[in-house]
Amino acid sequence: MKDSCISLLTDFGLCDEYVGVMKGVISSINPNANIIDMCHNISPQNIVQAAYMLCFSHSYFPKKTIHVVVVDPGVGTDRRIVALQIKNFFFLAPDNGVLTLIINKYKCKSVYLTQSQFYLSKVSSTFHGRDIFAPVAAYLSKDYNIHQLGETISTHELKRISDIYPVKYKDRLKGQVIMIDHFGNLITNISYTDIHHDTNRTVTINIINVSIENISSNYTQVKKGALLAIIGSKGLLEISINCGNAKLELGVDIGCIVQVVQTKI
Amino acid sequence: MKDSCISLLTDFGLCDEYVGVMKGVISSINPNANIIDMCHNISPQNIVQAAYMLCFSHSYFPKKTIHVVVVDPGVGTDRRIVALQIKNFFFLAPDNGVLTLIINKYKCKSVYLTQSQFYLSKVSSTFHGRDIFAPVAAYLSKDYNIHQLGETISTHELKRISDIYPVKYKDRLKGQVIMIDHFGNLITNISYTDIHHDTNRTVTINIINVSIENISSNYTQVKKGALLAIIGSKGLLEISINCGNAKLELGVDIGCIVQVVQTKI
Amino acid sequence: MKDSCISLLTDFGLCDEYVGVMKGVISSINPNANIIDMCHNISPQNIVQAAYMLCFSHSYFPKKTIHVVVVDPGVGTDRRIVALQIKNFFFLAPDNGVLTLIINKYKCKSVYLTQSQFYLSKVSSTFHGRDIFAPVAAYLSKDYNIHQLGETISTHELKRISDIYPVKYKDRLKGQVIMIDHFGNLITNISYTDIHHDTNRTVTINIINVSIENISSNYTQVKKGALLAIIGSKGLLEISINCGNAKLELGVDIGCIVQVVQTKI
Repeated sequence: MKDSCISLLTDFGLCDEYVGVMKGVISSINPNANIIDMCHNISPQNIVQAAYMLCFSHSYFPKKTIHVVVVDPGVGTDRRIVALQIKNFFFLAPDNGVLTLIINKYKCKSVYLTQSQFYLSKVSSTFHGRDIFAPVAAYLSKDYNIHQLGETISTHELKRISDIYPVKYKDRLKGQVIMIDHFGNLITNISYTDIHHDTNRTVTINIINVSIENISSNYTQVKKGALLAIIGSKGLLEISINCGNAKLELGVDIGCIVQVVQTKI
Repeated sequence: MKDSCISLLTDFGLCDEYVGVMKGVISSINPNANIIDMCHNISPQNIVQAAYMLCFSHSYFPKKTIHVVVVDPGVGTDRRIVALQIKNFFFLAPDNGVLTLIINKYKCKSVYLTQSQFYLSKVSSTFHGRDIFAPVAAYLSKDYNIHQLGETISTHELKRISDIYPVKYKDRLKGQVIMIDHFGNLITNISYTDIHHDTNRTVTINIINVSIENISSNYTQVKKGALLAIIGSKGLLEISINCGNAKLELGVDIGCIVQVVQTKI
Repeated sequence: MKDSCISLLTDFGLCDEYVGVMKGVISSINPNANIIDMCHNISPQNIVQAAYMLCFSHSYFPKKTIHVVVVDPGVGTDRRIVALQIKNFFFLAPDNGVLTLIINKYKCKSVYLTQSQFYLSKVSSTFHGRDIFAPVAAYLSKDYNIHQLGETISTHELKRISDIYPVKYKDRLKGQVIMIDHFGNLITNISYTDIHHDTNRTVTINIINVSIENISSNYTQVKKGALLAIIGSKGLLEISINCGNAKLELGVDIGCIVQVVQTKI
């Protein structure tokens, strides 16, 4: 029986052998690990995107899953690597803010790695995914004790991204497009709970020079080819085109500002 | 020991976390499931392409494999989801015609899903792959009884695609390019058995403004860079260039008409 | 428990069902095989690239891993398929030179395949990955005896690529870019051990019309956006841009000549 699940979230893409080699290292140490690719197409070094993907995806995995995040522009510098434990999950990531949303949401225990006996014997300066993250995740999946991996650190000391949430004004929310999926849907950092859902307020979504006057509950509420706003499967506000590609149609990219205006009737 | 195999066929692409999250959900319910990606690059919402890929690929998987197909332009509407059982395999798919070739080929039992206790507790309107297909496949892989999933339905009542096969005229077959692979090979919906193989007929394959006067038995029967027609590994007529890329050379795309003319000598 | 690991290295890409079907075949024969994708984006038919990737990656996998290489421009001709055994690993590959670096590095036993009872019952002329490589790897993973697969062949008789190494002149090494990764790093066939590391020699790396006067030990030794040379995680000389994309910046492609000049001070 497979005794543990390890998920991988990186910006490595799928063109190279990087992910395959990490899996080789993990399987060498724990042949029973069930390794699942969460996603490898985080925009290079886009920590905000990785933070959101981790936040809305992690809970769909088996309990005790070790989520390994390698979006790591600081590889080879003295940035710390941290192991985090919440009630049902573990996380292993560079201390660069990618865990901001997890830390803000859950009660956590955390350590920073110091025990290099769990690393590969030779650590390169460019590929810690293979040399540190993979073997440490594999050992953790056999034992599940983060305190053997390093020194306890208060979560208050961990790095946080300051501007990761949308900004709230009086009648207005200002967020941004944080990812764009295969279908061209524009996914924002504005969540369901950020928006007022009382019936005495209008809602208008503004992106570049277009306005959407409503939040739909499914794609077919607008006609084919029409623009809509919807709370997507991640619990985030998305801008889509029914049977079309909003990215191509609007010509926007990651980082584009999205505003939600809600005035009282 | 892994006790069951689940294959995934979708149009989700590999850029996003959609496939990873489905695997997380499956592994949460059945940690021993052996999940195999059949393909995730079906052209968005191309049901014909998915139907053919399922037909020529499904039998290479272990017996009792549950083939999950999520090419589902009707997600969030009231289209049904069906579970189909043939002698050696199971299928889980939207009732949109994607199972046409399987239903036409095999004796089947089928149900449409009604038992929502097998779904995730919260079902979104945009991602049934995660919320319905993944958990239902996982429960099915532990039990293999489709009749617990919903109501029996006659296969005659299931939706079929009417124009999925090539059209047969007196001395002529009219089909189309249904997929184009990584090497630029043009794969048609014309199968080996559609073509006359008696020696008293000529064979000419026409695509756009070019004609191929023969069906080769391997690539090296023509010189490097030359166009050829061949019955490929799927049992379907393919148009290829030896050591080259037929898609780029001919400038054709999915849907391009291909005709096979066979006149008596 | 999973009893064996099979890695897959191909030029099939990830758009099609080819890799998925190979995994289906392997799992049909050995349901306990742990199948890991090493890489599927070898440039079409680029045997040199596959040879290097195999050489620097194979040892990160579990002992007894069977590395299956399907970069096979000769598929359907009478080229041989060979199974190779070294102390800790197995290899299954076409006899086209893709094993050159492994054969030159290790003591090997080898056979060429003759025992077609291990193939699928129907062998196509275009997809030996599915029909021969996958089932033979699966049987080998249950038994680990290459001598049951075919006839013993001396490694001297196996095909080698003659110009796979950089050329050494008096004060100069002439190599080439053999792969370019997702981040745009230019990976050469010049290894750490090819270069003199004594302090009484200068080192200059020339590529197209630019010169780099040093080999850095990590990316941050140069400022953001600057070009650097580094011994990467594969033990090979790489040309990179700190936080940038060397491929796009320099406009070079695979095959570009790279020279290392080392004159005595």
